[in-house]
Amino acid sequence: MMDSNLLYLTQTDVKAVNLSMAEIIEAVEKGFYELGEARVEMPPKPGIHPGEGGANFIHAMPAYIPAMNVAGMKWVSGYPGNMQKGLPYITGLLLLNDPETGIPISVMDCTWITGMRTAAASAVSAKYLARPDSETIGILACGVQGMTNLEAMNVLFPLKKVKAYDRSPEQAAKLVDYARNTLGLEAEIVAEPKQAVTGCDIIVTSGPILKTPHATIKGGWMDEGAFASLVDFDSFWSREALAEADLWTTDHLGQYDYYKDVNGYFQNCPRVDAELGALVTGKAKGRTNDAQKTFAANLGIAIDDMAVAPLIMQRARDKGIGTELSLY
Amino acid sequence: MMDSNLLYLTQTDVKAVNLSMAEIIEAVEKGFYELGEARVEMPPKPGIHPGEGGANFIHAMPAYIPAMNVAGMKWVSGYPGNMQKGLPYITGLLLLNDPETGIPISVMDCTWITGMRTAAASAVSAKYLARPDSETIGILACGVQGMTNLEAMNVLFPLKKVKAYDRSPEQAAKLVDYARNTLGLEAEIVAEPKQAVTGCDIIVTSGPILKTPHATIKGGWMDEGAFASLVDFDSFWSREALAEADLWTTDHLGQYDYYKDVNGYFQNCPRVDAELGALVTGKAKGRTNDAQKTFAANLGIAIDDMAVAPLIMQRARDKGIGTELSLY
Repeated sequence: MMDSNLLYLTQTDVKAVNLSMAEIIEAVEKGFYELGEARVEMPPKPGIHPGEGGANFIHAMPAYIPAMNVAGMKWVSGYPGNMQKGLPYITGLLLLNDPETGIPISVMDCTWITGMRTAAASAVSAKYLARPDSETIGILACGVQGMTNLEAMNVLFPLKKVKAYDRSPEQAAKLVDYARNTLGLEAEIVAEPKQAVTGCDIIVTSGPILKTPHATIKGGWMDEGAFASLVDFDSFWSREALAEADLWTTDHLGQYDYYKDVNGYFQNCPRVDAELGALVTGKAKGRTNDAQKTFAANLGIAIDDMAVAPLIMQRARDKGIGTELSLY
Repeated sequence: MMDSNLLYLTQTDVKAVNLSMAEIIEAVEKGFYELGEARVEMPPKPGIHPGEGGANFIHAMPAYIPAMNVAGMKWVSGYPGNMQKGLPYITGLLLLNDPETGIPISVMDCTWITGMRTAAASAVSAKYLARPDSETIGILACGVQGMTNLEAMNVLFPLKKVKAYDRSPEQAAKLVDYARNTLGLEAEIVAEPKQAVTGCDIIVTSGPILKTPHATIKGGWMDEGAFASLVDFDSFWSREALAEADLWTTDHLGQYDYYKDVNGYFQNCPRVDAELGALVTGKAKGRTNDAQKTFAANLGIAIDDMAVAPLIMQRARDKGIGTELSLY
């Protein structure tokens, strides 16, 4: 039997590849272009739910993007209880196959990609939905997604000022430190969530995803002309604040409807006006004036991962990063 | 971050573990017991289909079996065109997670398990559907599944004689050689398919799976009291031969209906009388007399794989086989 190499990349290897956020955003946007042109295969993501109460999940997220010559699958776990044990909430592996033969060609830790591609999808939404001159960004909940979303928005927009809200001041201080010292932005910790909404051009809510929204953000807080990326679904948003939306978008209507109708999220949200793929291909209009309040409620889909993973694999091979395993 | 080990097993490693067919049959039967008691989580298997015409597939097959403390997924490709390129038709990887934390604990080549567990499921069906004194077995199509099915049936039944039919005499000769020299059975190559059906207590059809059955096996060929395992679905069976079935079973009704109603297989087959899980738990009756003609049309489901994979992992760790990788 022919020899076949499988490139294994640890989480450290994946980070060491040092793919830039700009490259990730570009790849994710390409993926959404293909999705918008209906040239990808992405079946629903099935999952298993070990443990009591259904809080844990392990999802299979397969996708095939012919134009990017990528076929593969992310097998990703989310265990809320892990954090108390000092273990990561999200863990998992991403597998790539040779689309020509189906043979596996790479196995890599998926956590770094998951963190980065989610933020990149926010930024792609913002490209079509936020004002190009957006300068002030409010981040509500300053964990991994708060950080990566800030990084991604800073790639596409002339950001000047960051307002960081988190129930943990230490967490907010980390983001402020990152904004100042790594990104060179003005940044302040705000004591009240309203201060990270009102006066902001871009708002990112990135707390834990909850079935019953805590609905912290009230009607009248969001400025005219602002854009909000709801990384934690509608958890942060009250019915009145959501009712102000002029344009409500998602990365995948089928999965959005599933989360809404089967899982009970997004109950107070407006009707979806456009999918991200349609914004990218120009089949649907994004922002059309400077007064609209625009929203992206992206769920995170397999296209995001599969658009990025081949770049990681190729760059790792080029740099000699990772462990070459034999399949046979 | 805590260190976490991931055990990687090549195809060679998996074989070297040397799990016996008897152990595999026992594990698969346990899995079906749990399935029959409705204590497993096994979502539908989604797939992608790279290439032209939809002949290629890559399927995700996740399952969680609490009683066996296993959560994982098989990501398996089937590329019919690979054989012409000297590459295997089936390739893929199987991933195991710690059910307590969701963290990946093992990655292994899935081809050996796929070959063995499919045959083991046939044998579990035969345990409830074939006569315990079955002595003569007919194998129609003597590839990997012909060989492993013979091996599995020989574990559970006092086999004496093997009748091997294959369009390729070389292929049939390989199976006869294996039957004689490894299993110590009488074995002969038969020139006509009918000779591997009439006079046989157990019949295994294990050719390629076809949407339009070649229907080689005619009405009146199968003996009273015989059992048939249809590893290649109904490809080998004519409408008249199928109409003789007294008991028609499958490993999973939901997937059987999907293959039948959506994919167009099993069009001439009788109504399903019982699922394998119900036979194993005693919720449905298997063979009740020595005259019935009984059938198993098993599809191969994730339970099969997940019941076996933890044994491979544990035995490999015990024997020091495989490569320990770091996840982080």
